[in-house]
Amino acid sequence: MNTPNINQIKSFFLSLQDEICQQLEQIDGKEKFTEQCWQREEGGGGRSRIMKEGTIFEQAGANFSHVSGDMLPLSATAHRPELVGRHYQAMGVSLVIHPLNPYIPTSHANVRFFIAEKEGEAPVWWFGGGFDLTPYYGFKEDAIHWHTTARNICRPYGEDVYPKYKEWCDNYFYIKHRNEARGIGGLFYDDLNTPDFEHCFNFTQDIGKGFLSAYLPIVEKRKEILWGERERQFQLYRRGRYVEFNLVWDRGTLFGLQSGGRTESILMSMPPLARWEHDYHPEPESAEAALYTDFLPAKNWI
Amino acid sequence: MNTPNINQIKSFFLSLQDEICQQLEQIDGKEKFTEQCWQREEGGGGRSRIMKEGTIFEQAGANFSHVSGDMLPLSATAHRPELVGRHYQAMGVSLVIHPLNPYIPTSHANVRFFIAEKEGEAPVWWFGGGFDLTPYYGFKEDAIHWHTTARNICRPYGEDVYPKYKEWCDNYFYIKHRNEARGIGGLFYDDLNTPDFEHCFNFTQDIGKGFLSAYLPIVEKRKEILWGERERQFQLYRRGRYVEFNLVWDRGTLFGLQSGGRTESILMSMPPLARWEHDYHPEPESAEAALYTDFLPAKNWI
Repeated sequence: MNTPNINQIKSFFLSLQDEICQQLEQIDGKEKFTEQCWQREEGGGGRSRIMKEGTIFEQAGANFSHVSGDMLPLSATAHRPELVGRHYQAMGVSLVIHPLNPYIPTSHANVRFFIAEKEGEAPVWWFGGGFDLTPYYGFKEDAIHWHTTARNICRPYGEDVYPKYKEWCDNYFYIKHRNEARGIGGLFYDDLNTPDFEHCFNFTQDIGKGFLSAYLPIVEKRKEILWGERERQFQLYRRGRYVEFNLVWDRGTLFGLQSGGRTESILMSMPPLARWEHDYHPEPESAEAALYTDFLPAKNWI
Repeated sequence: MNTPNINQIKSFFLSLQDEICQQLEQIDGKEKFTEQCWQREEGGGGRSRIMKEGTIFEQAGANFSHVSGDMLPLSATAHRPELVGRHYQAMGVSLVIHPLNPYIPTSHANVRFFIAEKEGEAPVWWFGGGFDLTPYYGFKEDAIHWHTTARNICRPYGEDVYPKYKEWCDNYFYIKHRNEARGIGGLFYDDLNTPDFEHCFNFTQDIGKGFLSAYLPIVEKRKEILWGERERQFQLYRRGRYVEFNLVWDRGTLFGLQSGGRTESILMSMPPLARWEHDYHPEPESAEAALYTDFLPAKNWI
């Protein structure tokens, strides 16, 4: 079978959003997600969910969106002339989780599907997605667990899959103007359409379903660590980097904002609070310094 | 005289930075600017000054920079092929002031000079600059004072100057993905090289020296207004918009970050603290709502 079944994908994305929200609510124990459904005139709509001021999650956003149209933006067709004049659909689930406790890392996950169709011709389609981790205070065992889980999810699809998507992730989530990675990486893939639809869809399902098995054990392990003003200030400072990456370099965010996407949904990735401090440098040998020296530089964790 | 005297411009920019810092210190009464001088390998350097945690100014940044090189970035020469192969110098003073009291507006000012030279040919040069105001709580009389001062500075240079640069400012400081102005505008000009050097330099000096006469009376007038958590939260929320504009739309910031400029100096414009709140709407008829309805939509204040 190599013909994408859009309803099947949509159904998976919606149930993935449900499943993840439910599990995050369960671990938070206090707050629930609130939901906003929206439609856009140009075609399509979405289901945005957000949890605010939880015990564990200061903010967690989980978006499903499914947009369609007859005219792809020039930026999308410039490098893919075969897409001109095709009806397209883009669909995905996107998550950004900002925990309150600075010892719990921020995390991001995304799975997406794109298809461009034209009568009488084969559809052009692909999957993309991945997940990545942004710690404030690094723990080697957490990084190993995170990357081991990522590798185990990829393994049934070939030994080369994890290293390839791990490197892609390191390259993508890189803050060039800081010469710094956004975090310790994970997986990132795009344009996936081989060997066939079933393979690609299965892989994307495994990525989506596997995300919490990578993230939740880290949340559980770090949620009881006591923290104070020092850790909070460092977390807010590092969240400034998250803002910088998302607004200056993240192609998805920029494409959305510049092409008239739904701003409030796109910017659900923004942290609830962030700070900037001119010429800040962590104290040498401190836990904050270790983030820069031992965790952010790209490396093989496993 | 139509030959730019670079030392004369540099001397003006440096003394302007001195003068503005001194006056801001005087009105703050508590904190002083600290200075960092820097050099870059590719040519040039700068003098960055910042005041943090003042009584009035939560943060104020005042940068002087003078960079030079033999290769302009492609983005600069694409629309100006006459600049290819020329030695260039770019020089300017840039200010961003984030007051603590939410009743005092944030303000920004900039004056800059660019020149590209080649032996045996006439130099290509121009001035640019302006200032703009970003209130959290609007006061009609402040907006009128701000724009009246701007108009009075422009008047000796022609009746058409203020309306032209006021409109340019409204267009430039516009947050497209929010359909919102960044503030109530002011003046913005670029590519100014007619009728002659002296005229352009005089105008730029008047803009630079006039900025504080537009801003300080507003600071004085609003600095004693009592404020609390509600005003602080709204200020932090609106500062998020400031971050969004600067990182997504401001050509100067993006050009600097993407071309390997000095990140810590460029991002001195970031607020010390900012927040995002999904789907926030001010209460109808509130002072916060009035910002959106009565102040941000571009209008003729005088």
